[in-house]
Amino acid sequence: MAQISRIGLLSRSIVNIRGRCRSTSAAAALKLVPGEYDGPSMKTEVPGPRSKELIQKYTNVTLNGYTVNFCVDSHSSLGNYVVDADGNRMLDAFCQISSLPLGYNHPDLLAIATDPNNANVLSARPSLAMFPNMDYPEKLEKLVKTMAPKGLKHMQTMMCGSCSNENAIKQAFIRYRHRERGGNPTEEDLSSAMRNQAPGSTNYTVLSFDGGFHGRTYACLSLTHSKPIHKVDIPAADFPCAPFPRLKYPLKEFETENRAEEDRCLVRIRELIDERKQAGGPVAAVIVEPIQAEGGDFHATPYFFRNLQQICKETGAAFIVDEVQTCCGATGHFWAHEAWDLPEAPDFVTFSKKLISGGYFFKEEFDPKFGARIFNTWMGDPPKLLMMEAVVDVIKRDGLLELTRESGAHLQTGLEDIQNKYPQHLHSARGAATFCAINTTDSAVLPKLQANMRNKGVLVGTCGTNTLRFRPALIFQPHHADIILDTLESAVKEL
Amino acid sequence: MAQISRIGLLSRSIVNIRGRCRSTSAAAALKLVPGEYDGPSMKTEVPGPRSKELIQKYTNVTLNGYTVNFCVDSHSSLGNYVVDADGNRMLDAFCQISSLPLGYNHPDLLAIATDPNNANVLSARPSLAMFPNMDYPEKLEKLVKTMAPKGLKHMQTMMCGSCSNENAIKQAFIRYRHRERGGNPTEEDLSSAMRNQAPGSTNYTVLSFDGGFHGRTYACLSLTHSKPIHKVDIPAADFPCAPFPRLKYPLKEFETENRAEEDRCLVRIRELIDERKQAGGPVAAVIVEPIQAEGGDFHATPYFFRNLQQICKETGAAFIVDEVQTCCGATGHFWAHEAWDLPEAPDFVTFSKKLISGGYFFKEEFDPKFGARIFNTWMGDPPKLLMMEAVVDVIKRDGLLELTRESGAHLQTGLEDIQNKYPQHLHSARGAATFCAINTTDSAVLPKLQANMRNKGVLVGTCGTNTLRFRPALIFQPHHADIILDTLESAVKEL
Repeated sequence: MAQISRIGLLSRSIVNIRGRCRSTSAAAALKLVPGEYDGPSMKTEVPGPRSKELIQKYTNVTLNGYTVNFCVDSHSSLGNYVVDADGNRMLDAFCQISSLPLGYNHPDLLAIATDPNNANVLSARPSLAMFPNMDYPEKLEKLVKTMAPKGLKHMQTMMCGSCSNENAIKQAFIRYRHRERGGNPTEEDLSSAMRNQAPGSTNYTVLSFDGGFHGRTYACLSLTHSKPIHKVDIPAADFPCAPFPRLKYPLKEFETENRAEEDRCLVRIRELIDERKQAGGPVAAVIVEPIQAEGGDFHATPYFFRNLQQICKETGAAFIVDEVQTCCGATGHFWAHEAWDLPEAPDFVTFSKKLISGGYFFKEEFDPKFGARIFNTWMGDPPKLLMMEAVVDVIKRDGLLELTRESGAHLQTGLEDIQNKYPQHLHSARGAATFCAINTTDSAVLPKLQANMRNKGVLVGTCGTNTLRFRPALIFQPHHADIILDTLESAVKEL
Repeated sequence: MAQISRIGLLSRSIVNIRGRCRSTSAAAALKLVPGEYDGPSMKTEVPGPRSKELIQKYTNVTLNGYTVNFCVDSHSSLGNYVVDADGNRMLDAFCQISSLPLGYNHPDLLAIATDPNNANVLSARPSLAMFPNMDYPEKLEKLVKTMAPKGLKHMQTMMCGSCSNENAIKQAFIRYRHRERGGNPTEEDLSSAMRNQAPGSTNYTVLSFDGGFHGRTYACLSLTHSKPIHKVDIPAADFPCAPFPRLKYPLKEFETENRAEEDRCLVRIRELIDERKQAGGPVAAVIVEPIQAEGGDFHATPYFFRNLQQICKETGAAFIVDEVQTCCGATGHFWAHEAWDLPEAPDFVTFSKKLISGGYFFKEEFDPKFGARIFNTWMGDPPKLLMMEAVVDVIKRDGLLELTRESGAHLQTGLEDIQNKYPQHLHSARGAATFCAINTTDSAVLPKLQANMRNKGVLVGTCGTNTLRFRPALIFQPHHADIILDTLESAVKEL
């Protein structure tokens, strides 16, 4: 998916020289979504009075209300711009927690939702593992060919990121036990499992990382170590947790220190796996994000991941790459792990968010070759797959990976310029394509900076304790980056 | 939702006397879905050659393939009839594992999927706990008013049944701990939870039942005790499991024995809760299905459930009723637990399947009153809510609860007639409205009977070890029951 496209070339010719075009006129730029607005337009602080009223209503009937930022006018939102209930129009660089691939109301997705041929798919929720529609096997076959990570040929669709991780882990447990036992479950395995007891219920564990986030169902939450409020008061499985590298940025300037930090973590990972094996709770899988996103946008280098895969191979643990947030292009590769140049594919690659459907790819050797071991009522959702298919097509047709690399380079250069101007406030600008972040020196400043940017018309996310994160859609162009950079600089000046 | 409707009256006038109308002509019956077929029509055995070919393709790329019965021609399927890839038309009394509320291609659901005003909802997957659409709070408010179980006013939408149960349980843990601690988490709670350690990670447990099914993510699977193949090789939380009554049918004939059996279970439940409290792993919640479905369609009486709720109140455990399979009318009540005449609402009622959206209702005292404790990227899916809203409206408009009670009574009477004629093969006919089951005397006969019925054009499910289960849609009428009964009798004769 790396071809240079028509639109990539066009947008480059408009933008000219990276990092030097903060005055690019949006009106003059080619719009990837026809009719997209020329810029933000603010009428009230956010949330405004209408949003506040709706949030109150919402809080009366559901937990969702507590965390709402503002309510969206989904008919008016378009492309990179979200319009709220008070008529405020913001450039959205957070995109529904990093989950909008093509922004708001993309014509190709609307076309699917208005095609009468799709009505029976859009209105039904079939049991894909018992009675799939007759066009589904071929649709899945085609999707696997189009989008599978190199070396993987099997996909299991799911509902969301958490159930993708839960089921990938289950498959890893099943495979580990089959290899250990040398065959199918015994009668004793089957009967003891019904009572949640050994040997049928295994003592296997999964290793995850400090600062990692893998979802919030029981197993996923036991693997999540990003914020205590996610976990407190809830029981957890006794799974081991290793340090994830805490590198210095820019990575190129600190290669020696960063290599030492990665080696320190790799040593500790091996130790933990050994300790657990000896304690009778072997590590059946290691799960890792390519960039720790919720935890604070922590990066590691390809060296770290290649060595991590090697440790998995040596110890028999499945190597699960959780690409729920990094999948689908925002890092400049369709799959973030493509940047690592691994000698072979990961054992599992899980996805969700921008791909609209949840799911995972897996190596054939992890296929239990037996029905109903990985199973639930729906096993995915065909309407989401229709959307996923279109997203993948649009990325190719419009050269969005190239655009994302270009817009990302522009955004990163701009972030570096700003942190060099305001080192008392900002540091550690970093990113892979548009999957960017920058830290505030004072964590108390973070929410103020975010709110100030929002009131000026730019929506960005936060993560960790002091990190501003940028998660624009794949239709984000250099002139949008200029708006972010101007707004960030203006907000920093007011600190 | 109990009003006598126009259509209910009409269908009754056609059917005349329950249990005596096996010759009712489908052509003469009022069709709830315009154009519905007059009966099954079979061209091949099922799966036929085209389905087999597609299943092979499917198995090459996904685990789903292992359990597929046949592939569906979703354009030709209509109402109670599913048409497969080989042109076989079957009366569907299993309905995508009990998850189709209104059969195939119901005009009211198609209307939603073809309304251009819905295109932006159908094509998007917003973050409902951060940036919901501005019409969503009022939509949710209205839905809660329309469909909430009596005494409950708060709803949390989710993606599926498993994540509904996972999150209801989390809310129960949070509440139990807040009460125990008398306030918010301490610094020590927060920091230890990040390491999966006490006191932040609690030792709380959830009590479930032998034969119960609550889903297949980690916590849910630890509470599931229906079939070993779901559980074997996978680690499980050390949660207690109590006996669920094993009653004799018809319930009215065995009241004394059944009461003794329910008392035996109630005593054991109390013992288990006491044991766990003393062992330092208190039971923070009890989760139970109104009818144990996957486990074998085991019923209990209102006496059992009222006492179970009482035990929960006395011990401080949350009373969670898992209505994933029983919700939305098939038992003759919109919520199956309405039949119990409880003195107050359950603490949680979880749902999914026929309601199309997953989710749960909960008592206000279980609201953590704090954001991000129950949270994930999407927190439900608005397109599913559009469908849920329509399903609830159609049930009311068309009097489908009344119809379901009527069709169910007809089906149950017929099942009893058949088991009385063939006691060597069938026994224990039972049900609540159309949520019916019958047992085979020999478990080896079960798959043959099911396959034989399917080849004759009637699709039914199985559960437990020797149970045929009927899970038709809510548009299932008495003349459809006749087709099932004739087919069952014909298949039994061939045993």
